Amino acid sequence: MNIGKARAYTNIALIKYWGKKDDQLILPMNNSLSLTLDAFYTETSVLFTTELSADRFYLDGQLQNEQQTKKIGRFLDLVRHTYDVPLFAEINSHNFVPTAAGLASSASGLAALAGACSAALNLSLSPKELSKLARRGSGSACRSIFGGFAEWQKGDSDDTSYAIQVPSDSWEEELSMLFVLVNDAQKDISSRDGMKRTVETSVFYQGWLNAVTDDLATVKQAIGEKDFTRLGETVESNALRMHATTLGATPPFTYWSPDSLKAMNLVRICRQEGILCYFTMDAGPNVKVLVQKKDSKWLMARFAEQFSKNQLVLANAGPGIEILDSERSLTHD
Amino acid sequence: MNIGKARAYTNIALIKYWGKKDDQLILPMNNSLSLTLDAFYTETSVLFTTELSADRFYLDGQLQNEQQTKKIGRFLDLVRHTYDVPLFAEINSHNFVPTAAGLASSASGLAALAGACSAALNLSLSPKELSKLARRGSGSACRSIFGGFAEWQKGDSDDTSYAIQVPSDSWEEELSMLFVLVNDAQKDISSRDGMKRTVETSVFYQGWLNAVTDDLATVKQAIGEKDFTRLGETVESNALRMHATTLGATPPFTYWSPDSLKAMNLVRICRQEGILCYFTMDAGPNVKVLVQKKDSKWLMARFAEQFSKNQLVLANAGPGIEILDSERSLTHD
Repeated sequence: MNIGKARAYTNIALIKYWGKKDDQLILPMNNSLSLTLDAFYTETSVLFTTELSADRFYLDGQLQNEQQTKKIGRFLDLVRHTYDVPLFAEINSHNFVPTAAGLASSASGLAALAGACSAALNLSLSPKELSKLARRGSGSACRSIFGGFAEWQKGDSDDTSYAIQVPSDSWEEELSMLFVLVNDAQKDISSRDGMKRTVETSVFYQGWLNAVTDDLATVKQAIGEKDFTRLGETVESNALRMHATTLGATPPFTYWSPDSLKAMNLVRICRQEGILCYFTMDAGPNVKVLVQKKDSKWLMARFAEQFSKNQLVLANAGPGIEILDSERSLTHD
Repeated sequence: MNIGKARAYTNIALIKYWGKKDDQLILPMNNSLSLTLDAFYTETSVLFTTELSADRFYLDGQLQNEQQTKKIGRFLDLVRHTYDVPLFAEINSHNFVPTAAGLASSASGLAALAGACSAALNLSLSPKELSKLARRGSGSACRSIFGGFAEWQKGDSDDTSYAIQVPSDSWEEELSMLFVLVNDAQKDISSRDGMKRTVETSVFYQGWLNAVTDDLATVKQAIGEKDFTRLGETVESNALRMHATTLGATPPFTYWSPDSLKAMNLVRICRQEGILCYFTMDAGPNVKVLVQKKDSKWLMARFAEQFSKNQLVLANAGPGIEILDSERSLTHD
């Protein structure tokens, strides 16, 4: 057996994935669209071997316990079942994040794992097939197969739900994203639980679904026309709409912390000062600010006046998944 | 002509008034329900006199300019037109607010003005007629005619839209409300403009209307059963739903500031510590916390750990509008 190794970059949704139609197959309620970024990525190697009697998962050099291996194990079960592989695996995974504050990303992690499995088993999966496989590990991972802009087409079955590249004439190379990492003492509700409660109980969920179709069309048009203002305004509106749905759930909840609002306010102030920039937020208190690369240094400096430097990470557009050369020996760090 | 004088207390909506069906008549899109509070009130005297060639409006002893007198003047025009009074008026108004931070209240102000006009003109209006008149000055003022709990029945015409007393077996005497006054450098969008933009553009407005009917029924049931938990949970949910609608408007907006979220988080923490309390918010960053009177001192002390004392005002349930004895001379302070 070969070691398979892959590197995948995280992606941030500009049009949000928010709600599952099928929990098992991870089919989403709506299409989403993301930008892949270069600053956060995961490298993972996989070896299927007769020498193991259970999966072994090393994360950043540390052997993970049963609980920590559960999600990975379920994904490997799927791979074993789908491709008829009666072997356990050793997985080595490294998250490359530029700060200790961290930014856990199941998107890059599961995309890299899917790529590494494909390589280890010589599956020669097409990007589309790899996207479908990654989706089963973590919904948003299906978009990290592609660089730049990617759209996850929701589909209505395992076979029809996957991401595709969004044509952009390389416009993403002119864009940056500033990550504002916000600490929050509150125990967050996970993305998975949050979207589930929202779909099941929010009085605003239908309004979200009605709006997201238009938002997606507008964003794709803005990408086609390289219209940054239109892109940014729609991205910010879409994020606020996603977060509004949580306030209409029973019981209601929010991912916002006081510093999230401070960052959002600063984005508005920067716009008043003449710099085009727009925020988005996911299922947590961090704020991500979309800006044109030419303005990114100014934005970084402006945010450094109100946030500490280790809360700020500037990212550019990143590439799609990369299958890496793999050594034939197991290394644990 | 007599001087008419009245005192009216502010009210805080537990089920929010959010959106007009008719801007001119001030007919609301949905019923709302409030608690009248004793800590903030307005005293106003009115004298219609042949000696004036224009309305004169003194607020807290200061003569107001034309712009500042506009809203009052429009209301007096309505009174003159409705009751055939061909006279201008001198109005003396005092806002009683226990802190310099202030809490402008058009509810107590316009209710007191309506009461003072009624007294000055010997109109002998019933509470229902007074509520309708106050409504024309400022929608939420129609609820300040009543003490304790009041419901504004939306109606569908000038004649059918007014507040009524909600039977409560005096339960409101066991309740308190802690006002957390949050300063905000941001220029707020007014309540009037905010609800207008929301009705016209928010993708969540229909969801709001669908939910508010149930929320109102639940709150009335909770009042009938003196069920504080049920009351509080519904009040908090309803406020969050109102604020969610602003995030779905075009362009989106919010009344929340970082300190609003800090206060909301502290309410959640207090609940985890075992004290039943629930927040509500209106078209501004202040947070109001509903609590049982027996727990109000504890709550005040807990909030004083994170907010300065002059940001905190504790209120109890207040009475309905009071027509006061009036001296026959004009006094300006």
